[in-house]
Amino acid sequence: MGTHLKRGFFISFEGPEGSGKSSQCKRLAASLRKAGHSVVAVRDPGSTELGRALRRVLLHSRQRLSPMAEALLFFAGRVQLMNEQILPALRKGKVVITDRFHDSTIAYQGFGGGLDVRWLDATGRAAVDNRLPDLTLLLDLSVEAGFARLKRTKDRMERKALSLHRRVRNGYLELARRNAKRIVRLSAMGDERAIAAEVLAAVERQLRKPRGKG
Amino acid sequence: MGTHLKRGFFISFEGPEGSGKSSQCKRLAASLRKAGHSVVAVRDPGSTELGRALRRVLLHSRQRLSPMAEALLFFAGRVQLMNEQILPALRKGKVVITDRFHDSTIAYQGFGGGLDVRWLDATGRAAVDNRLPDLTLLLDLSVEAGFARLKRTKDRMERKALSLHRRVRNGYLELARRNAKRIVRLSAMGDERAIAAEVLAAVERQLRKPRGKG
Repeated sequence: MGTHLKRGFFISFEGPEGSGKSSQCKRLAASLRKAGHSVVAVRDPGSTELGRALRRVLLHSRQRLSPMAEALLFFAGRVQLMNEQILPALRKGKVVITDRFHDSTIAYQGFGGGLDVRWLDATGRAAVDNRLPDLTLLLDLSVEAGFARLKRTKDRMERKALSLHRRVRNGYLELARRNAKRIVRLSAMGDERAIAAEVLAAVERQLRKPRGKG
Repeated sequence: MGTHLKRGFFISFEGPEGSGKSSQCKRLAASLRKAGHSVVAVRDPGSTELGRALRRVLLHSRQRLSPMAEALLFFAGRVQLMNEQILPALRKGKVVITDRFHDSTIAYQGFGGGLDVRWLDATGRAAVDNRLPDLTLLLDLSVEAGFARLKRTKDRMERKALSLHRRVRNGYLELARRNAKRIVRLSAMGDERAIAAEVLAAVERQLRKPRGKG
């Protein structure tokens, strides 16, 4: 670790509500900084002005948004986050950690919302010029366990039915099977520190791998 | 005219800044109502809560949005407008008139902004389930004439360079050539009433045509 990364290293955290993504993002960022890496941590959406505006629209809209409208808004926010923050950091050889990315839209609006998963996947990839994360950490836990752990005020996304969240979880597991090289599934149950150690080990394994030209 | 339209009739106005689209929308709505039609007039974006929120973001954002982010925001707003207002009105057999639609994104973000026009066209069509207008009226005029006629405060879109607006105009003309059955090009130069008469004649011609099953 600590060696200069020529083309940066791009990590996303994925998982259902209550899976502890944001705590693990913070812990990983701290560990990688300690190991000498330059780290940029972002949230998708939410780290850009556009992302924050879209997040307000998505969470608090009085009108019902269709899964298609939601997916396109998430894609738009992601493009902006990519151009403003992720690509510039990767170009400087930094490690970028993002709380959610492409897979969230496939899991929530595709598997969850019933949009065509293949179309959504292709459209979302094209929007970000096919620059998906080098490594995705899927923090997996049952829908019931996730809900039990949620202490925040329920917002629009979380009020959605349990059945939707089950489709989302199964969608995530399906994505992990289909993208076995990129996505590492970890159980989100158990001690936060223990999970953080597993996360760091997975990142270290991936960082040691040769990653083609670039 | 005035006969009940089984599947409604869907009209879009397109054209560069200053082409007089909004005046012509109003005149056409009035003429069709006089002829006994039930008419719904909308703006894309701007007629829904989401559209207004996106319009504020697009016009007044302090950050530079990429053409891709813009296109995806316009698509999202359009999906919402479609679901909330256009489809319900068409299902009731109404005539829907919209100030801008799909072609605007192809002309501005595609031809103007340099995005892949084929990808953009396919993505935008898929987003609205391939329900494009039955008739599109392209109010064409030179960029210079359009700018001269603009009296409004320049907003972000209008401050963009003349060269972009030339690409947009040429893009519109290309779209009219490629979609000759759907898009009717009218000169936007000359008297507003005379143009309104041409618009109405084009609509009447199209309304008389048999329009397949449905």
